Amino acid sequence: MNLVVQKYGGTSLATVKRIINVAERVVKKYNEGNQLIVVASAMGDTTDQLVKKMNMVSDNPTPREADMLLTTGEQISIALLTMAIQNHGCPAISLTGSQARIKTDDKHNRAVIKDIDNKRIKKELKKGKIVVIAGFQGINSKEDFTTLGRGGSDTTTIALMASLKAARCEIYSDVDGIYTTDPKILPEAKKLNFISYDEMLELASLGAEVLHPRAVELAKLYNLKLYIASSFNNNNGTIVRGVEKMEKKRNVTGVACDSDVIKITIKKVPDQPGIAGNIFTGLAEHGINIDMIIQNLQYNNLNDISFTIHNSDLKKVKEIIYEIAENVDSRGVEIDQDVAKVSIVGAGMISTPGIAAEMFKAMGKVDVNIQMITKSEIKISCLIKEDGAQKAVESIHKQFNLGEL
Amino acid sequence: MNLVVQKYGGTSLATVKRIINVAERVVKKYNEGNQLIVVASAMGDTTDQLVKKMNMVSDNPTPREADMLLTTGEQISIALLTMAIQNHGCPAISLTGSQARIKTDDKHNRAVIKDIDNKRIKKELKKGKIVVIAGFQGINSKEDFTTLGRGGSDTTTIALMASLKAARCEIYSDVDGIYTTDPKILPEAKKLNFISYDEMLELASLGAEVLHPRAVELAKLYNLKLYIASSFNNNNGTIVRGVEKMEKKRNVTGVACDSDVIKITIKKVPDQPGIAGNIFTGLAEHGINIDMIIQNLQYNNLNDISFTIHNSDLKKVKEIIYEIAENVDSRGVEIDQDVAKVSIVGAGMISTPGIAAEMFKAMGKVDVNIQMITKSEIKISCLIKEDGAQKAVESIHKQFNLGEL
Repeated sequence: MNLVVQKYGGTSLATVKRIINVAERVVKKYNEGNQLIVVASAMGDTTDQLVKKMNMVSDNPTPREADMLLTTGEQISIALLTMAIQNHGCPAISLTGSQARIKTDDKHNRAVIKDIDNKRIKKELKKGKIVVIAGFQGINSKEDFTTLGRGGSDTTTIALMASLKAARCEIYSDVDGIYTTDPKILPEAKKLNFISYDEMLELASLGAEVLHPRAVELAKLYNLKLYIASSFNNNNGTIVRGVEKMEKKRNVTGVACDSDVIKITIKKVPDQPGIAGNIFTGLAEHGINIDMIIQNLQYNNLNDISFTIHNSDLKKVKEIIYEIAENVDSRGVEIDQDVAKVSIVGAGMISTPGIAAEMFKAMGKVDVNIQMITKSEIKISCLIKEDGAQKAVESIHKQFNLGEL
Repeated sequence: MNLVVQKYGGTSLATVKRIINVAERVVKKYNEGNQLIVVASAMGDTTDQLVKKMNMVSDNPTPREADMLLTTGEQISIALLTMAIQNHGCPAISLTGSQARIKTDDKHNRAVIKDIDNKRIKKELKKGKIVVIAGFQGINSKEDFTTLGRGGSDTTTIALMASLKAARCEIYSDVDGIYTTDPKILPEAKKLNFISYDEMLELASLGAEVLHPRAVELAKLYNLKLYIASSFNNNNGTIVRGVEKMEKKRNVTGVACDSDVIKITIKKVPDQPGIAGNIFTGLAEHGINIDMIIQNLQYNNLNDISFTIHNSDLKKVKEIIYEIAENVDSRGVEIDQDVAKVSIVGAGMISTPGIAAEMFKAMGKVDVNIQMITKSEIKISCLIKEDGAQKAVESIHKQFNLGEL
C-alpha cells in the first residue's frame, strides 16, 4: 500500500462547500487503496480575519501570541475537513502541529522544522485512518505553538513526506500546474508536464503561489518528486523533480513577468571604492531585499546606482534612502514604480549559447527598451517599462516556441 | 502576594473593544500587587459560528473532531486578551487547556477534569507573568483536546483555584451579581451581598447564567469562596460561600421564575402499581429530564399523571410520549406550554415552619392559581399559568420583604 501525502491550500478550503468537495477527492484517493496523509491550510480568508482582529488589539503583538492566534486557522480547517471525510464512512483523524509532533526551533512566526516525531501519525495510519494534519504550524521545546511563516504548509508537506518516506506527494491549490508563462497575460501559455527544482525556484513569480520556494528547496534537498494540480478540476498537473530525470533539456522553460518591482536610482554618486558597499549595507541592515543592481559611470567620475526592490519594501526604503544618499554625497534619489521585470528560465540555458541574444531580439521586435539586465546560470531577467510587459512576454514566448510544447 | 483567579465570560469578551476593556481591568488588578490567573471563554458568538459551520459539514460530527473545532474559540480569545494585556507593558502569557495540562477523562464534549499538572502555570507565575488560560477545555491521556461541556469555563476556574490554592476567585460576566429575583421582571429586586452554595444551586434560573451549577458544586466541595460581578461596571457583586459563614440565616433569599417549562399530562391512566415507573423509565431512556411530578386520582381508579419538562426537550418528548401513553392504556396526552414555575429559595427555610403557607398566601392575594407544587429542604416551587408569573413574583417578593434587604 502506497503512502500518499496530499496538501490542500487555503483557496481549496475557502468555504464549507469546498471542504466537502476536497473530502470527496480525499476519500476517492483512499478508496483506491492508498494510505493517506492530508495537510490542510487555513480556510481562505480566516488568517486575514484573525490578523485584522490582532491589529485592532495591538500595534505590536508579541510573536508568541500571534502564533497562538494564527494556529487556530488550520485547526478549524482540519476539524471540518476530517468531519467531512468521516461523513463518507471513512476513518479519519485530525492532528494539530503539536499533536503531530512537528518540532521546530523557537523563532515564532518564522520557525524552522527541526524534526518530526512521527509515532502518533504512524499509529493512526496503521489503524487505517486518513490522517489530516494542520500545515504551517509546529511546536517548540517549551510546547509553545509556532508558525513556519510564508509557504509554511508546503514546508510541512515536504517535511512529512521526507519523514514518512511517502511514495507520492500531491500539492493542490486553485492553479492546475506550472505554465510557460502566466495564462492571464498570455492565453496561449502551455502547461508544463515537468519542471526541475531550479527552474521552479527561478520562476518564483510563476510558481510561488502554487509551491513556496522554501518547500521547493526542501524537496530538492531530499530529491522528492512533487505533483502540482488543482483541487477544482481533474486536469493533469505538473511534476516538479530533479533535472537529471528530465527527458530532454529545454533551453527555455518559461517566461515570468513581475510587476511588483520598483526601481530606485541614487544619482551621481562619486566613483570611489566602498560607496556601493555603504549603500547596500545600509539597506541590508533594515532588512530590505535587493533584486537587480546596476551601476552606470557618468561624466566627471559620477555614478548612477540603480537597484530594484519589491513593492512591499517601498515604505521602509523611503524612510532611509534619502539619508543614505546624502551620506554618499549623491545628487538625489529617483523612485520609478512604472517598471516590470520579465525573465526567462531554463535548465538547458547553461549549455546553450545565444539564449540571451534571442531574448533581447524578441524584445527589440516589439520596441521594448531594456533598462537593466541580470543573468544567473538558468535565468535572464530584464527590467522594462511596465506598459511594455505584455508585448514583451508575448514576443519572447513566441521566439522560444513555448506555445508549441 | 495574593494569587487571584479571574474568569471572564463570552459576553465580556464578545468584541475587540471589550477584550481591551477586560485587559485594563486585569492590569489594574495586577498592579495592585496580585499574582494573577485569568480564565477566558470564547468571544461572544464564536462558538455559535463554529457550530454553524460544523452543522453545514456534517449532521453527525464525531465528538473528537467537534472538540478539535470548538477549542479554537478560547484559543483565539486568550491570544487576543494576552496581546491586549501586553500592550500595557504587563508581562503575560496565554496557555491552552493542553499547555496548562488540564487533564480530563476521554469523554469528548463533556469531559471531566481529573487533575491539573500546574508546573507550567507556576513557572510562569513565578516569572511575574499574568497567566491567561483557555477555559472549557483540557487534554486527555492521548493528548487529544477535550471540552468540558456546558459551564466548562466556570469549572476550569474553580479547578484552577483549588489546584493552585488561590486566595480569591472572581467570576465576571454581564451580570453584576445574584438578585432576590430577576430585575427584568421586578425592578425593585435587590442584589444579594452573600449567597450560599445550596441556595445558588436551587436558584439555577437566577444564577446559572452567571455561574454554572457544576462549578458551584465544585466550589462547595472545596469550600471555595467566589466573587461574582460584572465586567461592564464597578458595582459590588455577590459572594458565593458556605452557609456556616453567613451572618444571619435568611428564611427566603430569592424568588425565581422560569417560563421555559412545559406541562405534560397523561390522562386517565389505570391506577395500577408500576405504571408511573413505566412512564418515567421510558422518558429517562430518551435522556429527558423531568422536573416536577404530580398524580391526581380521578373517578373509577383512573389517574392523571402530570410532569414538567424544559422547553428544549419538547421535540424529543413529542416523538415518544404518545406511544408511552398508549402502552399504559391512557386516554390521551395534554401538552400545556402556557405555564411558568415560580420558586422561592432560602437556607433558613429548613428551620422555619410556615414559609410555604406565606408563599401560597402571597399568590392567593393576586388571584394566581397553583397547578403543581414541589418542595425540597430549601426550595418551594409552584407551577402556575404563565400570565400570572409577573404578579406572583411581585407579590411573593413583597411578602418576604426582599426589597428591603
